[in-house]
Amino acid sequence: MSAASAGRLIGVGTGPGDPELLTLKAVRALEAADVLAYFAKEGRRGNGRAVVDGLLKPGLLELPLYYPVTVEIDKDHDDYKSQITGFYDASAAAVAEHLEAGRTVAILSEGDPMFYGSYMHLHVRLAGRFPVEVVPGITAMSGCWSLAGLPIVQGDDVLSVLPGTMAEDQLVRRLGDTEAAVIMKVGRNLPKIRRALVAAGKLDQALYVERGTMANSAMIPLAEKADDVAPYFSLVLVPGWKGRP
Amino acid sequence: MSAASAGRLIGVGTGPGDPELLTLKAVRALEAADVLAYFAKEGRRGNGRAVVDGLLKPGLLELPLYYPVTVEIDKDHDDYKSQITGFYDASAAAVAEHLEAGRTVAILSEGDPMFYGSYMHLHVRLAGRFPVEVVPGITAMSGCWSLAGLPIVQGDDVLSVLPGTMAEDQLVRRLGDTEAAVIMKVGRNLPKIRRALVAAGKLDQALYVERGTMANSAMIPLAEKADDVAPYFSLVLVPGWKGRP
Repeated sequence: MSAASAGRLIGVGTGPGDPELLTLKAVRALEAADVLAYFAKEGRRGNGRAVVDGLLKPGLLELPLYYPVTVEIDKDHDDYKSQITGFYDASAAAVAEHLEAGRTVAILSEGDPMFYGSYMHLHVRLAGRFPVEVVPGITAMSGCWSLAGLPIVQGDDVLSVLPGTMAEDQLVRRLGDTEAAVIMKVGRNLPKIRRALVAAGKLDQALYVERGTMANSAMIPLAEKADDVAPYFSLVLVPGWKGRP
Repeated sequence: MSAASAGRLIGVGTGPGDPELLTLKAVRALEAADVLAYFAKEGRRGNGRAVVDGLLKPGLLELPLYYPVTVEIDKDHDDYKSQITGFYDASAAAVAEHLEAGRTVAILSEGDPMFYGSYMHLHVRLAGRFPVEVVPGITAMSGCWSLAGLPIVQGDDVLSVLPGTMAEDQLVRRLGDTEAAVIMKVGRNLPKIRRALVAAGKLDQALYVERGTMANSAMIPLAEKADDVAPYFSLVLVPGWKGRP
């Protein structure tokens, strides 16, 4: 390919973990890609990369992007911000180099790229400069409520997607102000989330889901779950849909 | 098959309209099905059925379920409620007959089955009696923000999914109380939604999307869209993600 014709960037949602939940479009994007980029922790492969493991063509160039810091560091600290900004800049530059050489680059994103995905950081740095396509993926929350067979919203229900990191009084208020809720980033926030659900009168409806659609997934009514350990990426689902016809 | 072994029910999300956005699992569910059921308006085929048109095997039995009333009738009226309840009961009975005969029945659901899908009405009537699997689909909102290349939520953002049917003052309040919002069921509610976005100071960020991912889709900043005509299933997206690193 000539350097004059830039390559194409494809943000590929890999869904909640089950490779069968990839879309046909995601599979074709992997077939079209010359380079496969993905975020991961240093020394690990990342969940998105694991999902596509059986689908990669021979000769595909891999470009792992290793986070310099982890979620354990305070996100509001200046050191974190400057490190992570530099990392996204450098990652975008590494991808841009392939695009400028005319290669098609697929960037994996767990779940849905535009829905809390790290891919977005590269998207906003590259979308103005190169042709870009975003292939949506099944979100983790959708994988979870489907696995649970749990109708989440119907009719005129409001759905609130809430981070478990939120202050407890805010969580109580918002849980009382919505028909259905999905609480993300549970992890260490589980005891607080439980207290907020009790205060909002919704503990009995809440379902706790861990690693939804992955091989080792687990789900249990939150009322029966101990506060001891919860992975960061576990979810709590509070279904709406009162007054079913 | 013997009448003693009941068939399997599969709720299949068909995604936002582009057949390429079906999951691999949805395609396999269609291959496994003996009967294909779907909701539609009388005399029409329905969007879900159109999405899978190229994927149906010969000899597949089709079971269209025609709505007795349309969305134009007041949903709070007793006649509507009794008609629609009877319709869901009769539809569930028609599906149950095939399941009892040992057949695998796939019920199509536009978007994601558990996310505002009509499928849920059959799910709650049949899930206790037969083996059921739910195959999640890409939601219309996800199809829209992906097509738009619009990062919708990041980090600790709250996302509120709001029906455009909501009272104006409620809409204003909720738009002011969230980082990101998706407003569903736009249609005739468009002028009210616009006023609410102006009052909440968010009109300039709002994107209007019509028939996202379908062949005839359209998107435009809401500020540039006339109030004249909007299909019922158009969406308004208000992105979050302030303070991008």
